[in-house]
Amino acid sequence: MALTILKGNIVSAPRLGQLDVTEGGYLVARDGMILGVFPQLPAEFQGAFVEDFGGDLIVQAFSDMHLHAPQYPMLATGMDLPLLDWLNTYAFPTEARFADRDYARAVYRTLARDLIAGGTTRVCMFSSLHTDATLILMEELERAGVTGFVGKVNMDRNSAPGLLEETTEESKRETLRWLEACADFRGLRPILTPRFTPSCTDALMAFLGELSRTRDLPVQSHLSENRQEIQWVRQLHPDCRQYWQTYQKFGLWHDKTVMAHCVWSDEEERRAMKEAGVTVVHCADSNQNLCSGVAPVRKMLREGLQVTLGSDVAGGDSLSMFQVVASSIRASKARRILDNWETDFLTVAEGWYLGTSAAAHFFGEKPGFAPGNRLHAMVLRDTDLHTPSHLDPKARLERAVYLRQKDCVRAVWSDGRRVL
Amino acid sequence: MALTILKGNIVSAPRLGQLDVTEGGYLVARDGMILGVFPQLPAEFQGAFVEDFGGDLIVQAFSDMHLHAPQYPMLATGMDLPLLDWLNTYAFPTEARFADRDYARAVYRTLARDLIAGGTTRVCMFSSLHTDATLILMEELERAGVTGFVGKVNMDRNSAPGLLEETTEESKRETLRWLEACADFRGLRPILTPRFTPSCTDALMAFLGELSRTRDLPVQSHLSENRQEIQWVRQLHPDCRQYWQTYQKFGLWHDKTVMAHCVWSDEEERRAMKEAGVTVVHCADSNQNLCSGVAPVRKMLREGLQVTLGSDVAGGDSLSMFQVVASSIRASKARRILDNWETDFLTVAEGWYLGTSAAAHFFGEKPGFAPGNRLHAMVLRDTDLHTPSHLDPKARLERAVYLRQKDCVRAVWSDGRRVL
Repeated sequence: MALTILKGNIVSAPRLGQLDVTEGGYLVARDGMILGVFPQLPAEFQGAFVEDFGGDLIVQAFSDMHLHAPQYPMLATGMDLPLLDWLNTYAFPTEARFADRDYARAVYRTLARDLIAGGTTRVCMFSSLHTDATLILMEELERAGVTGFVGKVNMDRNSAPGLLEETTEESKRETLRWLEACADFRGLRPILTPRFTPSCTDALMAFLGELSRTRDLPVQSHLSENRQEIQWVRQLHPDCRQYWQTYQKFGLWHDKTVMAHCVWSDEEERRAMKEAGVTVVHCADSNQNLCSGVAPVRKMLREGLQVTLGSDVAGGDSLSMFQVVASSIRASKARRILDNWETDFLTVAEGWYLGTSAAAHFFGEKPGFAPGNRLHAMVLRDTDLHTPSHLDPKARLERAVYLRQKDCVRAVWSDGRRVL
Repeated sequence: MALTILKGNIVSAPRLGQLDVTEGGYLVARDGMILGVFPQLPAEFQGAFVEDFGGDLIVQAFSDMHLHAPQYPMLATGMDLPLLDWLNTYAFPTEARFADRDYARAVYRTLARDLIAGGTTRVCMFSSLHTDATLILMEELERAGVTGFVGKVNMDRNSAPGLLEETTEESKRETLRWLEACADFRGLRPILTPRFTPSCTDALMAFLGELSRTRDLPVQSHLSENRQEIQWVRQLHPDCRQYWQTYQKFGLWHDKTVMAHCVWSDEEERRAMKEAGVTVVHCADSNQNLCSGVAPVRKMLREGLQVTLGSDVAGGDSLSMFQVVASSIRASKARRILDNWETDFLTVAEGWYLGTSAAAHFFGEKPGFAPGNRLHAMVLRDTDLHTPSHLDPKARLERAVYLRQKDCVRAVWSDGRRVL
């Protein structure tokens, strides 16, 4: 690959709440690895090809840390039910269609293309329980240039009988078959995906915990999204005082675990996340659409938890991470109102960090355009927006977020490779 | 004008919560006045020209009942302060630029075009305090095809000294000059616009109340948006127990009054609105952006208040009424959470009604595509959205709302005239 040198107004989020701006700067990568951001081109690179994006913004690409690929067909419909009814009425029938490989191919090709078009280059994603469709999803993501983690869903109880179900034995066998096929992928890795505690028998949970331990595999699931769900988990696991313990007791609660939602996680559950190094995915759109509640993100950040963002398509109604960042800021203002104005809302700089840098830790990298990171970047050309007054790069970024300016994405690099 | 006949999937909101669907139906207007929606073309119109939009949705155009035209340049920036600080730091300096007629012309031409492009054909709008710029705004709106009410702002105290201010005498004189010039407009009418109680001396309020009475003019202003604002009003008018009484005592509180926000209006203030026939404008985006709170819209609707929607640009961050309708639904879910799940959220049908039909009353019409209404309609072509499964017209409307599909607007009629 050799050298990639991008010139423009470079904005990155090296720390929560901080935006570094280098106007007319140079972002340099070699063989897909970032060497640095420089105000002037260092002497050693003189004469190398520079892609000059003029006044455009060059920013980090997004990481969408929680979404359900097979729910993409129902995007922005069916938002009138609480979680458990919503799953049975809308989500499960939609996912069931992915037994059809051709259907899967068509939807996932579109999804992968739309992710890149919106500047999302890293994901932590749920597939359905279908092994073949999961592999098709991974093929389409890899082809489009999306990297990260994808999981075949496990659910051997409380599913949709005759429509979307697997036995414990099928679930185990298909998981092993899927893991074997995953060796063929370069930019995508498998993540174990018990749908959520009510969907998995103890035997299946134990099997997955053991797989995670012996093969050093990451885990993703859902936690404390909705109060009825929490009650249900309590009935299913009377030996566990808290929801998180139903994952912990099977070895599914560690520093490679990602938990979506955590709307109702209290101090004890949050401490358990902190101690284990669990990554939280805040899904503001989804939590509001399904009336689940508003996660206490400010508290989590103060306590030092790893908080990232997810679109949660299709509980969330938009694949655009511009929207997701804007929604996390909005949600923090709703949270402020709920907290009687006692918690601070998220600033644009903080929201941007959560949508970009915060996931770096989970991918084994550093926040911002840190040297040593893989190049995940995008160019935002906002010149066709009305700009009646001069805006500095930070104000332009704010506007791109609030206007959900996914149309501004003019170029994208993923894992060092130009993909748009 | 003679006959206009539009064929397509016609969806209208004749009552709060109800969507009428006529698949492959005919919307017929004569001289800009709606005659009806028909499943088959009535015999009397056989042979007349029919514009056939195939499977597209034909729906009512939007009414944006509260927005600040001179804040359009700051759209989607500066969302980090509460109301009163936000006004001084961002809004007043932005509005001050409209002393420049050329600047006003350029911004307002864009605004008017963007309103029509987004399917908004009726407005109730604040200008700045500048008479000339207000007339330019009205010219540009009329040229683009936007109808409704526009107000030159009055503010003779607590303004931005040296930047954006007028004396009581100037305010009166300019208001009369502006009203005289308004006679030249056809689709746009003047509305008296005391900015809000803290901005106007008693003398100015009394003058405006008298104008409203003698010339039968409507009134728009702000009410109970923010708790600090309410405290301030209480200090300014110690004789008034409640904010609304500061308008009432000057004759500015009647059935041609529109009040934006009403976030903190309690039972007594709401009863005063109901009894006087005051129209409420709910501005969900703005109220959340500025952390003002969440208006009790469900309660207002139950109590029989006239509730409409406003983008409140630029406290709101989007001119798109698709966004505004979606945000009102979102806000109702935040309100449900605030109310411990005791109030129902707004359905899509209800949100759509609020963004379209609810304002009909203020414009002297009936909800929906009622015979006798002027033709305000738009065609939504959503065929370029991914539709992996069959969606009926109601589901398509829901999706258009949640996806903020302003790009779907392919044709617009305002006051009987094709304007896009």
